[in-house]
Amino acid sequence: MESLILGSSDIIRVVRHVGLDRLMDEAIDAIEHVCMHYDPVRHQVPARAGFAYNDPHPGLLEWMPAMQLNDKVVVKLVGYHPHNPGTHRLPTILSTVLSFDTASGHLLSVTDGTFLTSLRTGAASAVASKVLALPDSKVVGFVGCGAQAITQLHALSRAFEIERILLFDLDRSVSDSFKSRTAAMGLEHLPFEILNMQEVVGRAEILCTATSISTGRGPLFEIDNTRSNVHVNAIGSDFPGKTELPLSLLENSLVCPDFTDQALVEGECQQLSVDSIGPDLVTLIKEAGSYHRYRQAKTVFDSTGWALEDYVVSEVLVNFAREYECGSSVALECNSADPGNPYGFLQDNAVDRTKDEPGLAAATQSLKRTRLG
Amino acid sequence: MESLILGSSDIIRVVRHVGLDRLMDEAIDAIEHVCMHYDPVRHQVPARAGFAYNDPHPGLLEWMPAMQLNDKVVVKLVGYHPHNPGTHRLPTILSTVLSFDTASGHLLSVTDGTFLTSLRTGAASAVASKVLALPDSKVVGFVGCGAQAITQLHALSRAFEIERILLFDLDRSVSDSFKSRTAAMGLEHLPFEILNMQEVVGRAEILCTATSISTGRGPLFEIDNTRSNVHVNAIGSDFPGKTELPLSLLENSLVCPDFTDQALVEGECQQLSVDSIGPDLVTLIKEAGSYHRYRQAKTVFDSTGWALEDYVVSEVLVNFAREYECGSSVALECNSADPGNPYGFLQDNAVDRTKDEPGLAAATQSLKRTRLG
Repeated sequence: MESLILGSSDIIRVVRHVGLDRLMDEAIDAIEHVCMHYDPVRHQVPARAGFAYNDPHPGLLEWMPAMQLNDKVVVKLVGYHPHNPGTHRLPTILSTVLSFDTASGHLLSVTDGTFLTSLRTGAASAVASKVLALPDSKVVGFVGCGAQAITQLHALSRAFEIERILLFDLDRSVSDSFKSRTAAMGLEHLPFEILNMQEVVGRAEILCTATSISTGRGPLFEIDNTRSNVHVNAIGSDFPGKTELPLSLLENSLVCPDFTDQALVEGECQQLSVDSIGPDLVTLIKEAGSYHRYRQAKTVFDSTGWALEDYVVSEVLVNFAREYECGSSVALECNSADPGNPYGFLQDNAVDRTKDEPGLAAATQSLKRTRLG
Repeated sequence: MESLILGSSDIIRVVRHVGLDRLMDEAIDAIEHVCMHYDPVRHQVPARAGFAYNDPHPGLLEWMPAMQLNDKVVVKLVGYHPHNPGTHRLPTILSTVLSFDTASGHLLSVTDGTFLTSLRTGAASAVASKVLALPDSKVVGFVGCGAQAITQLHALSRAFEIERILLFDLDRSVSDSFKSRTAAMGLEHLPFEILNMQEVVGRAEILCTATSISTGRGPLFEIDNTRSNVHVNAIGSDFPGKTELPLSLLENSLVCPDFTDQALVEGECQQLSVDSIGPDLVTLIKEAGSYHRYRQAKTVFDSTGWALEDYVVSEVLVNFAREYECGSSVALECNSADPGNPYGFLQDNAVDRTKDEPGLAAATQSLKRTRLG
């Protein structure tokens, strides 16, 4: 039984065949679809758990499992190491996704989760924004212009006719490089304005906060000068004690978490009582019509990252990979023709492989000799 | 940044270089070593969690994480699907192991966990048996002669001078095939006796129970006719409600769980109060001298499977694989030269790969044209 391995170069091939725009569109559709059809018995998504540590740098390694009954278990392993860009020239977020067949526990695929995490985090914001932001929103603002902001903009650009992009980052080189990093999106004709934070916050019709603010150091800004009908995608709050938005803004907004139990622990919802939290993403999508009136009001999507988003977006990637024959098939699991013999694969596979590998043929003979005494 | 992929054919190569006996010896040593040096701050091992379901068959998919601070996080994903041998000709247990560098969250390796699970489950029993069984134990009995029994025997054969092997399995074909499945171990000169269950239980000096008894259907036998100095390795009890041994035997034995919190939920220890449970494996090894007197009494190793065993035995496998250059290196994570651009790898890697792939070169050009407008 083989497993599909989908690494970086395979995902390049998938993107070559499918295109980034269609991939994002499919990710948005997949998240909308699973929310619309979400069933608490069929879909099981425990709150994520993980290890947090400060040695050698602050870091977090988490597992995010999700199951669709009678189909697959998908487990995303994801690291959050804010020193990575400076220390290792690696992204803050690195991730791998495994999917398993619930019929047998067989590993179906191992895929990169780094690109997937960016993609689905953008897509989820687009899904929420389509319900909660004014459909003719044209001005998108970013506080925090790092990696996550790129796919936020890409996803929003698939759902809104963006005409103006407002940028603030504590590190001026990051806001300066933002436009060049969005080169794949066909937005280069638009004005990208670098402003101070309060100007971005005050002028954006859709605001995205995606910073690495330290725990206990929030909010990003004290004065809520957002527009009366702003929609905010709050991305950065994803750890106990880490929040970005001022309480006054949350209290004057309809706050929709992706996953309420998790948002209460890690998201902006940490600042709220359960009673004052709005619908979760599933409810928002299932009952979208009844929430459209909030487009006239302040709204916040509290995005902590939901394992079922990873489940469905990894399916999008894997399905395209299979369609276009990207990736490699590897017999990862040592399973024997005789399931009662955990050492049986040493004989089975060795014999299989002797066809093309004379060195191994000799070794197999030697194994056999050992076995036969 | 590449990750080591260690699949079935790679593990065959590792075994070819190292030999099964040395691999088992190293696994035993590694478990003893980590128990001896266990430190509750440095080593973090949460209780495992997972999904249990009955559709399409009863199954269990679990994640077992373990961290050694300032070193690695190792996560084993393991499926338990008792219908596998009959329905899919696959082992009941299928598993994959991932290891991550805590400095960056980078995925170091993806390896089979199926062979590893058998190996480490056997090795852990040998570690406990070396302290608790009489050193001159010669008669080993098995109730349940499936896959797990094979590595139990192998591990015990590395620590004891076995002279006689007693077998019982509800499925006579399974006990009949046992000897042929142990062909790699050099034990074929020994008598393998197929007996009824109570005879195996009564005559074994070291008894191993490794069955797939259904939850709520235990114990395997009602009457405790074990020898007064028997040591039992209880392997099969690894799920709430699933137990193998009669309470009377447990009450008359020193019961040592591998991981007390987990054994209370899933192991034989479900039947006991916390007060009546003996030392865990770490305590047993750290204070081995003070437990040798229990060799004269009945003792039970309650093995539910401990994630730190997987951690150290996966290190043994990966270290040998690196030493003998087995496995393949794959850039699994889509990380860009610019960590601020989640789409950057599409450019970086595509350019790298154009050297050997003209089709991709054209695609890269096309990507670049798109990007440059």
